[in-house]
Amino acid sequence: MKRYLQLATEFENLIANGTLEPGVRLPSVRQASSSYRVSPSTVFQAYYTLERRGLIVARPRSGYFVASRPALTKSLTIVSKRSIDEAYGDSLVIRFMQAQRRCSHPGLGSSEPSAQLFPLGRISRSLAAAVRRMSSSRNALSAGKAEADLRRQIALRYIVTGVTVPIDEVIVTSGALDALILCLQVLTRPGDTIAIERPAFHAVQGAVQRLHLKAVEIPVDPHRGLDLGALAEALRQHPVRACWFMTTLHQPTGATLSDERKEALVRLLARHGVPLIEDDVFRELHFGLTPAYPAKRFDSNGLVLHCGSFSKSLAPGLRLGWVAAGRYAARIERARWLTMAPASVPAQSAIADYLEHGDYDRLLRKVRRELAYLQTRMVAAVVRYFPQGTLVVRPPGGFFLWVELPEGVETVQLFEMAEAHEIAIAPGAIFSCGHEFRRHIRLNYGRPWTSDVEKEMHTLGLLATRAMAEHGTARHTGHEGAE
Amino acid sequence: MKRYLQLATEFENLIANGTLEPGVRLPSVRQASSSYRVSPSTVFQAYYTLERRGLIVARPRSGYFVASRPALTKSLTIVSKRSIDEAYGDSLVIRFMQAQRRCSHPGLGSSEPSAQLFPLGRISRSLAAAVRRMSSSRNALSAGKAEADLRRQIALRYIVTGVTVPIDEVIVTSGALDALILCLQVLTRPGDTIAIERPAFHAVQGAVQRLHLKAVEIPVDPHRGLDLGALAEALRQHPVRACWFMTTLHQPTGATLSDERKEALVRLLARHGVPLIEDDVFRELHFGLTPAYPAKRFDSNGLVLHCGSFSKSLAPGLRLGWVAAGRYAARIERARWLTMAPASVPAQSAIADYLEHGDYDRLLRKVRRELAYLQTRMVAAVVRYFPQGTLVVRPPGGFFLWVELPEGVETVQLFEMAEAHEIAIAPGAIFSCGHEFRRHIRLNYGRPWTSDVEKEMHTLGLLATRAMAEHGTARHTGHEGAE
Repeated sequence: MKRYLQLATEFENLIANGTLEPGVRLPSVRQASSSYRVSPSTVFQAYYTLERRGLIVARPRSGYFVASRPALTKSLTIVSKRSIDEAYGDSLVIRFMQAQRRCSHPGLGSSEPSAQLFPLGRISRSLAAAVRRMSSSRNALSAGKAEADLRRQIALRYIVTGVTVPIDEVIVTSGALDALILCLQVLTRPGDTIAIERPAFHAVQGAVQRLHLKAVEIPVDPHRGLDLGALAEALRQHPVRACWFMTTLHQPTGATLSDERKEALVRLLARHGVPLIEDDVFRELHFGLTPAYPAKRFDSNGLVLHCGSFSKSLAPGLRLGWVAAGRYAARIERARWLTMAPASVPAQSAIADYLEHGDYDRLLRKVRRELAYLQTRMVAAVVRYFPQGTLVVRPPGGFFLWVELPEGVETVQLFEMAEAHEIAIAPGAIFSCGHEFRRHIRLNYGRPWTSDVEKEMHTLGLLATRAMAEHGTARHTGHEGAE
Repeated sequence: MKRYLQLATEFENLIANGTLEPGVRLPSVRQASSSYRVSPSTVFQAYYTLERRGLIVARPRSGYFVASRPALTKSLTIVSKRSIDEAYGDSLVIRFMQAQRRCSHPGLGSSEPSAQLFPLGRISRSLAAAVRRMSSSRNALSAGKAEADLRRQIALRYIVTGVTVPIDEVIVTSGALDALILCLQVLTRPGDTIAIERPAFHAVQGAVQRLHLKAVEIPVDPHRGLDLGALAEALRQHPVRACWFMTTLHQPTGATLSDERKEALVRLLARHGVPLIEDDVFRELHFGLTPAYPAKRFDSNGLVLHCGSFSKSLAPGLRLGWVAAGRYAARIERARWLTMAPASVPAQSAIADYLEHGDYDRLLRKVRRELAYLQTRMVAAVVRYFPQGTLVVRPPGGFFLWVELPEGVETVQLFEMAEAHEIAIAPGAIFSCGHEFRRHIRLNYGRPWTSDVEKEMHTLGLLATRAMAEHGTARHTGHEGAE
């Protein structure tokens, strides 16, 4: 990497992790040149790069300053069933889902990791044994026993994350989405306001619609994660009943809040007495240098309802999730009993058995190594095939890249172009019902790297480059026409 | 059976199936004596029995008349989240569910059939193969393929019931309850009114609470099923947005609407343009002499959303259900995609495989034969152990008996007494939030008959008899005190 880019990246990190707050003045070119031992022109080039990215602003005769995060100014969008219906009438999300099914290679746009990453032979044997035990007259498998076993194993796993969770606090559901929606249902009534992220996984907007809620969208920065300032503002301005946030490996950006910021989040919400539904389905896939703890670790008030899943990290497609529901556990459990059927009994038994007797930690280490490798391949393919000016942030885990294409590439259009080539991608617009993220795509790298994947990336890159060229021509033509 | 009881039963059936409508005069004692070739005193005894049961009334100097169904007069109860909360604050349902888990023999009160009735070895092999196929790189199992296969198999099965259901109309969910609630969610908004049955499975009231609806309760007679007159009245009086009814083997009564009455129901709703969510999870277990068709068979307007499940008839605990959603299919499918995670992929694949290659019809014949035998055993045990005056209606299928105990036995109290003996029963009060069905219990006979079951029935009978005796004493004492 060129020296000026290295320097720019260093400053970018300092801005991202909050060392350089918005409004702070950067060292002068002379100071920076001397302390970083680079030429003044290298500093200039680095500052110019940061300025182009909108991270710093030049003020004449004063120097360079860290830009206010632009998201903040438009942070407090309120969405509701109506605005979601109107904004895109769900149709893009539906088209996206249909494309996933139609295309012969749904990998790049998929929301799930490939099952090929997981040694499902072991799970399959446990599952078969559990089903057989259900129907044997001796030693029959009861629903109560399977659930109790799984709850105990989940509670035990929390110990690793430094959180003490009594078994009674754990409520098992058919997948994490059921747990998340159950929490929302217990914490809100129709018409209430909650806080969600922008961008957010499209199921979040689906839940807002389904439960007839309103939602205030809090911006997420791919580097720093959730904008706590905007959240504080939202809590002041709106009667927020609950928050639904992904604190680690946020989807689609991959942003992970630092421990400090997780703690600050928990404190801020405690001051307002607002519960946090912590959507933490990717944490087991975190491969950063330091471990990522759940925000629940910093909660001493029982206000954090921590939701997890085995679908991303152990058994995709089996649909088992849970919530450790803090002070709301009794209410959540009642609601589950009264309004939801219990989760699959053999699946619960099989997973409990694996957690007790299998080697989940070794499996996770293997999966994380594999994902880290696959991320490298995917980043390299983006660099190689995508147009110059494409931005990509490497998340510290998971299986998604959040990619911003240069001016001129509308990714909804790219989605349509790609579909003609049997490639299904996830355009940024499905992650917000505003007209944002029009140049973003979410890329799934959670499957074995094959020449097919390489070819799809190549095709996508060509399509994006063509879109840019056409855009350039169109603009040019448009300009001529206007004269 | 004594001759007068036989005669009473004959009349009861004529009243139940609607041949003798309310208000119709019964034959005089002399006429009946001559046409049934029995003594006048036998007719007297039969009429007296029917009168005691409230089925007919004597009018001085006019003879005996079929009684107006008493339920009708109090038919239009409206329940809502609030009234359900207030009525019993869910606590009885929760206590019931907890007892199911605590007791070592949860059979009698359980809502599920025993898995031991089903040959799960076959399902378990399919399931294991499906999970393995998910993770193999060749011939991988995709979510789309598994779901498409299952939808096709479900659509094919409808042909047997005389209903043509295009594949597109079938939406697969994690269990029938998810399908039922999804339908309600699409058809209603918070605050809307729906029509439900009284009594009804407690999850129905749970859904009313969860979705913030109001519900008008339509009485169900154990013989005739849903009171269509009361429904017609409800449709006139209330802005009913949708109905949720069990037309075959209603839970808990076991009532099954005749084909004629199903057709009348569909016509009545069509006149009002009101959709019917047909909860038909027990129909495959119908072992009556004539087949039981779904009401959807009589629907030519696409107004019937027919919900089914494999949990009662093939694979308990696997959690797979569906809805054939008529004209609402596109909306229901959108809502499922936007707000629900897909059902377990290996489970879908395993069931589709079984439906295609297994012999489901032969299995069902076997299960029905077994259930018919178990019903006989359970009825015999009720007759043998329960106090005189206990009423039980034999349903034409399923695995529940709806039993009415004589005056003096409060079944909530019996539930508590039984729990002390490690027996969990389902008291009638959990099937309505009014103060009804206080002398009813639902008995599950869907498990192999063992000496344990016999012993539990014996214990229950003793407890009921004791409760009656104590009640008698208490009343007597109370009477003395008042003097």
